[in-house]
Amino acid sequence: MSRDPPDDLFLRACRGEPVERVPVWIMRQAGRYLPEYRAVREKHDFLAMCKTPELAAEVTLLPVRRLGVDAAIVFADILLPLEAMGAELRFLAGEGPHFPEPVRRYQDLGRLRRPDVQATLGYVFEALRLVRRELDGLGPGGRVPVIGFGGTPWTLAAYLVEGGGSKQFEHLLAWSYRDPKGLGELLDKVAEVSADYLAGQLEAGAQAIQLFDSWGGLLDRDRWDTLARPPLERVIARLRRDRPEAPLIYYVNGGAHLLPALATLPVDVLSVDWRLPLSEVRRIVSPGKTLQGNLDPAALLAPIPEIERRTEAMLAEGAGGPHVANLGHGILKDTPPEHAAAFVRTVKGRSAAEDRLWRGRCEPNTLRS
Amino acid sequence: MSRDPPDDLFLRACRGEPVERVPVWIMRQAGRYLPEYRAVREKHDFLAMCKTPELAAEVTLLPVRRLGVDAAIVFADILLPLEAMGAELRFLAGEGPHFPEPVRRYQDLGRLRRPDVQATLGYVFEALRLVRRELDGLGPGGRVPVIGFGGTPWTLAAYLVEGGGSKQFEHLLAWSYRDPKGLGELLDKVAEVSADYLAGQLEAGAQAIQLFDSWGGLLDRDRWDTLARPPLERVIARLRRDRPEAPLIYYVNGGAHLLPALATLPVDVLSVDWRLPLSEVRRIVSPGKTLQGNLDPAALLAPIPEIERRTEAMLAEGAGGPHVANLGHGILKDTPPEHAAAFVRTVKGRSAAEDRLWRGRCEPNTLRS
Repeated sequence: MSRDPPDDLFLRACRGEPVERVPVWIMRQAGRYLPEYRAVREKHDFLAMCKTPELAAEVTLLPVRRLGVDAAIVFADILLPLEAMGAELRFLAGEGPHFPEPVRRYQDLGRLRRPDVQATLGYVFEALRLVRRELDGLGPGGRVPVIGFGGTPWTLAAYLVEGGGSKQFEHLLAWSYRDPKGLGELLDKVAEVSADYLAGQLEAGAQAIQLFDSWGGLLDRDRWDTLARPPLERVIARLRRDRPEAPLIYYVNGGAHLLPALATLPVDVLSVDWRLPLSEVRRIVSPGKTLQGNLDPAALLAPIPEIERRTEAMLAEGAGGPHVANLGHGILKDTPPEHAAAFVRTVKGRSAAEDRLWRGRCEPNTLRS
Repeated sequence: MSRDPPDDLFLRACRGEPVERVPVWIMRQAGRYLPEYRAVREKHDFLAMCKTPELAAEVTLLPVRRLGVDAAIVFADILLPLEAMGAELRFLAGEGPHFPEPVRRYQDLGRLRRPDVQATLGYVFEALRLVRRELDGLGPGGRVPVIGFGGTPWTLAAYLVEGGGSKQFEHLLAWSYRDPKGLGELLDKVAEVSADYLAGQLEAGAQAIQLFDSWGGLLDRDRWDTLARPPLERVIARLRRDRPEAPLIYYVNGGAHLLPALATLPVDVLSVDWRLPLSEVRRIVSPGKTLQGNLDPAALLAPIPEIERRTEAMLAEGAGGPHVANLGHGILKDTPPEHAAAFVRTVKGRSAAEDRLWRGRCEPNTLRS
C-alpha cells in the first residue's frame, strides 16, 4: 500500500506547502444528497452501513468518482467510539442519534469502559483499508488521500450527556457548572478512547484526521480553554507522536468568538463555518495557518451561476494564505448533485489560473505538478 | 396612567444616563421555571394565555413580585403578528411553534395580509394596559417599567418560511440565495406589520421595546446587512418617529461575528449572549453603547456561591460603560427560582457598592437616587 505520496495536493495544502491550485472536498460529501447513497441507504440502516466495511468503502468513494474531489473521507459516525465504550446508541428515523441511557453524573462514569478499538471499531479500520486499496488502484492521476475523522472529546461528551442532539445542551452545561471536575473525568475517558480510535484510523491508512467540534461554540472562550481544550490537546499529542506526518484538521461551527483561542491549537488546519470571511479569520489566527472552508452550504441551493460567483468570492477571500476549499458545514440533503459538482469544478478550474495562486510562499515557476 | 418616570433606573441605563446601580431583568423571566407560571399553564394552553389579557398580565407580574427585577416584560410570543397576518399557528406540546402552511415562495405572499393590529392583536395591548395599571399601583418604590417586544423581520420570516424552529433553516436560506428579492418582499410585509404591532405596544403603555433577532446569527455580516438590516431599520425608524423617548433594545444570539455591523444599528441597547465578555463587545461596538446581558443561562444551574461569583465577574466585565444585567439567553426551565433570585440579588447588592459604579459618565456625588 502506498502511503502519503509526497506530491499530493490536499496534503501539501494542509501542511502549508506550495500548491499549484486550491484543493477541494465537501463535508458530508458521501451523504444523502447523492442518489447513489440513498440507493444503498434504502437497503441498509445507518449503523449497518457504518459497520459493513464494503458498504462504508463504497459510499466513501462515490463523491471521488462523481464529483472529482481532492480527498475522500471515510464513511462513519463520530458517535461510534461512544458505543464502543458501552453506551447504547440508536439512530431514530428522522430524529438523529439517541443514547437511551445518557451519562449525566459522575456516578455514571462506571458504565463506560476503555475498549479494545481493534475489536470494537475494527470495521472502520477495515473500511479505510478497502478505500486505500481502491484509491491506490486508480493510479497517480485519480488517486486522492483519505481523511479519517472523529468528534472532539467535548462534542462527543455533549451527545452522550444530552442523550442525543439538543437545542441548548442544558444537561451538559448544567454539569459543567455544577461539577466541572466530574465532567472533566468524562472528557478524559472519551479523549483516551478517541486517541486510540484515531490512531487506529491512521494505522489503517487514513492520511489526515479531521476533528469535529460541532458544539465547541456553546462555550465562551475561557470555558473552551478550560474544559474543551485539555482533553482535545491530549488526543492531538497522541496522534502527533504516532504519526507526525499526518495533517490534523480542527473544525468548529459557530466558533467566531473562539478564534483567538483556536489560533494556538496545535493543528495544521482550521476549518471554519461561513459566518466570517476567510480573510478575517486569517487576520485573527495567523497568516500561515491553513484554513479550510467556508461556503455556506445553503449557497449550493442557488442557481449554478450564483454558486460559481460565490465560490470565486470565497477563493479570493482565502487567497492570502494556504487554503483547502470546502463548505462551512455539511452539505444539505436537498442539494442537487450537479450543484455540488459546480462547486468542485469552480474551485478546480478557477484556482488553477495563475492569478489565483497563493503567492505568499511560492512563485508559479517553482511549483511541482 | 403615569408614563416613563424620568428617574426610572432601567430606562436611564438603557439611554446611557447616570445610574446608581446596574438594573437587572431576565429573559423569559415569566416562564416555566416558576411554579406559579406552571400552575397557570396547567389550566390554559399557551396561546390561550397569550390571548387572555388577565392571564398574560398575571404571569408578566410574577417575576416582579418574586424576584424583584427592575423591569417587567409583557407575556406574549414573537409569532403572534404572523398569525394576525393570516398564517395558521399551532403550539405542539414539547415541540414548539408550528406553521402547518409555511410560506416558501413568492407566490405564497398573497396569503399574507396587513391586519388591523387593534382588532387582531388587541389582547397584547390590553395586557400591557393591565400591567401598567397594576405596576403604577405599586407606587414609586415598587413601580418598574414594562418592556414590549417582538421578533425582527428576519427572525419572524425564519419561522414562517421554515414552518417552525429548525436546526439549519435550510428553506429560509435556500430562498435567500435563490430569490433574495422575493424573500425581501416577505421581509417588508413582516416589517410593516411588526411596526404597527410594536407601535401599538408603545401606545398601550410599553416603555421600551426589545427586538429579538434569534436567527440573525445564521447570516454572515454582508448578508445580514443586505437581507436582515433594511426591514429592521424600517421598524426602528417607525418606533423612533412615534415615540422617540422609548429605548429600543436589539438582542441577538450567536452573533459575535455580526458585532461590527451591529455597532451602527440605531438602537439604544445591544443585548448579547454569553459567548464574548462584555468588555470585548464594548471594544467592538463603542464604549458609550448600553450593553445588556450576558450570564450563561446554564450558570444558574450551578450552586448559589458559584452563581454569585459568575454574576460579579459579569458585572465587572460590564463596568466599562452603561449596562443592564440579564442572562445571555432565556432562563432555562430547570432553573430553581431561588437561583434566579440569587442572580437578581447579586446584581442589586453588589452593583450598588460604590466601587461598581460606572465611572465613565458620572461621578458618585452627582447621582440621582
